[in-house]
Amino acid sequence: MTNPVKLPAWTALKTHVTAISDLHLRDLFAAEPQRFELFTLEACGLLLDYSKNRITKATLPILTQLARESGLEERRTRMFSGEKINSTENRAVLHTALRNITNTPVMVDGIDVMPAINAVREHMTRFANAIRSGEWKGHTGEIITDIVNIGIGGSDLGPLMVCRALHRFAHPRLKMHFASTVDGDQITGILSRVNPATTLFIVASKTFTTQETLTNAHTARRWFLEATGNPAAIAKHFVAVSTNTEAVTAFGIDPANMFEFWDWVGGRYSLWSAIGLPIALCLGPDNFQALLAGAHAMDRHFAETPLERNMPVLLGQLGILNRNFYHFPSLLISPYNQALDRFPSYLQQLDMESNGKSVDLDGLRVKDYETGPIVWGDSGINGQHAYYQLLHQGSQGVSIDFIASIEHPDSPSPHGPILMANFFAQSEAFMRGKTEEEVRIELTAQGLRGEALEKLLPHKIFEGNRPTNTILMQTLSPESLGALIALYEHKVFVQGTIWNLNSYDQWGVELGKQLAKAIEQELIASEPVTRHDASTNGLINYYKQRLLGA
Amino acid sequence: MTNPVKLPAWTALKTHVTAISDLHLRDLFAAEPQRFELFTLEACGLLLDYSKNRITKATLPILTQLARESGLEERRTRMFSGEKINSTENRAVLHTALRNITNTPVMVDGIDVMPAINAVREHMTRFANAIRSGEWKGHTGEIITDIVNIGIGGSDLGPLMVCRALHRFAHPRLKMHFASTVDGDQITGILSRVNPATTLFIVASKTFTTQETLTNAHTARRWFLEATGNPAAIAKHFVAVSTNTEAVTAFGIDPANMFEFWDWVGGRYSLWSAIGLPIALCLGPDNFQALLAGAHAMDRHFAETPLERNMPVLLGQLGILNRNFYHFPSLLISPYNQALDRFPSYLQQLDMESNGKSVDLDGLRVKDYETGPIVWGDSGINGQHAYYQLLHQGSQGVSIDFIASIEHPDSPSPHGPILMANFFAQSEAFMRGKTEEEVRIELTAQGLRGEALEKLLPHKIFEGNRPTNTILMQTLSPESLGALIALYEHKVFVQGTIWNLNSYDQWGVELGKQLAKAIEQELIASEPVTRHDASTNGLINYYKQRLLGA
Repeated sequence: MTNPVKLPAWTALKTHVTAISDLHLRDLFAAEPQRFELFTLEACGLLLDYSKNRITKATLPILTQLARESGLEERRTRMFSGEKINSTENRAVLHTALRNITNTPVMVDGIDVMPAINAVREHMTRFANAIRSGEWKGHTGEIITDIVNIGIGGSDLGPLMVCRALHRFAHPRLKMHFASTVDGDQITGILSRVNPATTLFIVASKTFTTQETLTNAHTARRWFLEATGNPAAIAKHFVAVSTNTEAVTAFGIDPANMFEFWDWVGGRYSLWSAIGLPIALCLGPDNFQALLAGAHAMDRHFAETPLERNMPVLLGQLGILNRNFYHFPSLLISPYNQALDRFPSYLQQLDMESNGKSVDLDGLRVKDYETGPIVWGDSGINGQHAYYQLLHQGSQGVSIDFIASIEHPDSPSPHGPILMANFFAQSEAFMRGKTEEEVRIELTAQGLRGEALEKLLPHKIFEGNRPTNTILMQTLSPESLGALIALYEHKVFVQGTIWNLNSYDQWGVELGKQLAKAIEQELIASEPVTRHDASTNGLINYYKQRLLGA
Repeated sequence: MTNPVKLPAWTALKTHVTAISDLHLRDLFAAEPQRFELFTLEACGLLLDYSKNRITKATLPILTQLARESGLEERRTRMFSGEKINSTENRAVLHTALRNITNTPVMVDGIDVMPAINAVREHMTRFANAIRSGEWKGHTGEIITDIVNIGIGGSDLGPLMVCRALHRFAHPRLKMHFASTVDGDQITGILSRVNPATTLFIVASKTFTTQETLTNAHTARRWFLEATGNPAAIAKHFVAVSTNTEAVTAFGIDPANMFEFWDWVGGRYSLWSAIGLPIALCLGPDNFQALLAGAHAMDRHFAETPLERNMPVLLGQLGILNRNFYHFPSLLISPYNQALDRFPSYLQQLDMESNGKSVDLDGLRVKDYETGPIVWGDSGINGQHAYYQLLHQGSQGVSIDFIASIEHPDSPSPHGPILMANFFAQSEAFMRGKTEEEVRIELTAQGLRGEALEKLLPHKIFEGNRPTNTILMQTLSPESLGALIALYEHKVFVQGTIWNLNSYDQWGVELGKQLAKAIEQELIASEPVTRHDASTNGLINYYKQRLLGA
């Protein structure tokens, strides 16, 4: 465990980047016509073109050296083999075991976790088949038509993202709904659209105490009981993804319909576990299995391929290069596939909650390097009409990952070619930009001359030289999506390792929760609050006054 | 027009910030118990608490001086009075005239624009009333139940955001749909859910040539003709927001159902114009009018209030402080009101497309200061379970605007208090953080001792000192939403003025479009492409090969 700044490769990379940083991407492409062949990689059905990064042939060996010096290979082995690399919580990190379809033993504390994983997966399969076939009936004997997943964070974003991304594989009868926020507007809206006799609620909370989730679950339960008047019917309409048998049973859920997971499954890595139950229901157990298989293929690639040709390693190293050496504060995820419009939100949690840390594995405060970037984005083509202006001409660069699929069965002609033309054009534009000379020729051709031309000219110049990655898959399928998600999971691991962070805890979410718990009582109490800072006191008292006055 | 770095106030601010930058927000609150009273402001139904910024009483006069030296007051007058402040396009900037409900004349090129504005608004009102009452019938004599807005960027984000935010005012019969992306998945999905006999399509494109919009419009038209076989029926089911009468008529739309707007309405400032037709339809002309009135109130506040107590001016100045002096690269918009979940996306375009520039009004390349930040976010409470980890403990700070409403009719008890407790707790947490001493006491109370305590301790420290603004409104209504949007519009104006930018052009979106146009043909052609850089050639050829092989 070492401060990366102290590694020889870090210094070497700094020297190297200084030497090449004056070269524009245009220069790099002009100097090396083989950049595409040199700087692309195929694995698990994904093509990664990283040639539009500010790198030369000399950059990659230094990046590899950095990864190696950071102990990446050892730490990778430790993760896959179930060692407790989540050191602050003393836990293993085994989302890879959840998709270990070869079933080779994975030991935690001397016990193989695979039998338990397989048992839960079989449970999920039986349950999903029963709902999908109509064998499972609601309390009035009707079949289920609507599924409401109640969960937040990792218990929401993963299933939601996958069900949207793969909607063309969805069961035609089952409508999926996702309730996450404690703002009652959301659950109220969902409840107004579903029928208690044909709706299944999944309450997803490991401890069955997550406040937002339990508040929504109890609102759904009240609504259900008001409609049916029958507490015994709860067991036909509510199931749980949890480990708290007692609380689940007290809620009215049959413990036989509780789906378990383990402390070595982090929330943001949990869609492969029972948290993926909405996926199994919506897309079917076979497609869920295919998603796991796609991720497993990427796991094998990550575990077994030399660093030089290892896709998550490359993507992570380039992230380090852009973050720490070219100082890009943010990474835009820009899918040119509408079904992936929630993938950036999913990655936002995965990346920012994992590497948004500034205390290292040795407990030292990170002072001399930046860690996780801001990850953001949504539909790429919509972004072009919104925030791309800043990406092209703003004062601060943004690094971008473009993602698309070659075949696009949901996009009839002529939609597909227009979408893809924009996809290719944008990475070209970010790379090359538009020079003063090019603008001058264009404006002259448009008939502008003299002062009018000179006045407009500077505004139409594009600097270019923005680093981008392009990821292409044949089609958006369970397998390719599984591989894509696992690619980013391991990328986060690579970056966390180089930054010397524990990517698997999330202490940063605690303080707000603690403070909220205390304030909740104060909002109900009649007397004004005085124990906070002036602003928090002032806001709470303003609120209470206005709420009563209303 | 001056480089802001050369203004005396810029230097003064730099000196001042250096002097106070070692003070933690905790220190500032300890030193000045009146911060809430000193640093809050009410206007147009909004409370702005800006006391959790890294400012002292001495900061504000320097910020005001900076705004004044930048010529803010003159430029504000020029905007409101219809001067052509969009200098690169030689256009006035008059979204304020669109909500000028007092109807005082606003002159452009010697002509009062108010009669034209009022005429279009009356047209919108008549049309909206006819659809809402059921007086307007589809070609089979049925009333309209579904409205599909086809537009992208400003022709999508504004109406979509407002209709979602104010959904509790929505007409119960009218379901709203928004098609923006050229990915056919979206429009295909919408068309599969609506009935041609009862659906109204709004095609929103000023020039009626926006490629994404027209592609979607033609797909909808084909679908409609396949279902009805009746070209004459198009006029009962398609209307346009456009200025291109010829193209609109050729499409089959009755020019009497074309709603016009003007070159002094920028796309990202256009929801107040005919682009707001979905709002008038969904919420009714009265609520649309109330939205305008709310914005107008903020316009008057902005135009007439001294800079020192002027809400958009303050918000803009604080943005400058956080961007240029404390160097925060991004601004998170965090609404604690689910209905505002698309407000951050809306602001993303508004802010980033306006001030994501690096050539100033004098045509000079901006070199010595940063301009527009990355603006991002979604539902705040969901963010807590996703990316807030980085905000609290990441290596790089993020400035945050928290937004909520006091009354929350859609959020039944106990949802409301939990939501608001989190809202207040988060800004408290970002301000104060958690010190080593506090963590030590807490861990000791939990029974930790010695090495175990020392090991965990650094990971549970929160630095705090993150600047945030808090905006509270009584309730989320047409008036308050109108004021909120206008607040941010003017904030963008203030920042653009200080940064010496033209916030009203968007040349940065052009290059990608141009390149895409050329590539579109190449995707269809059979021969491989060779005229691009190696990466773009490689990607396009890879795509073509795989697409044919499929």
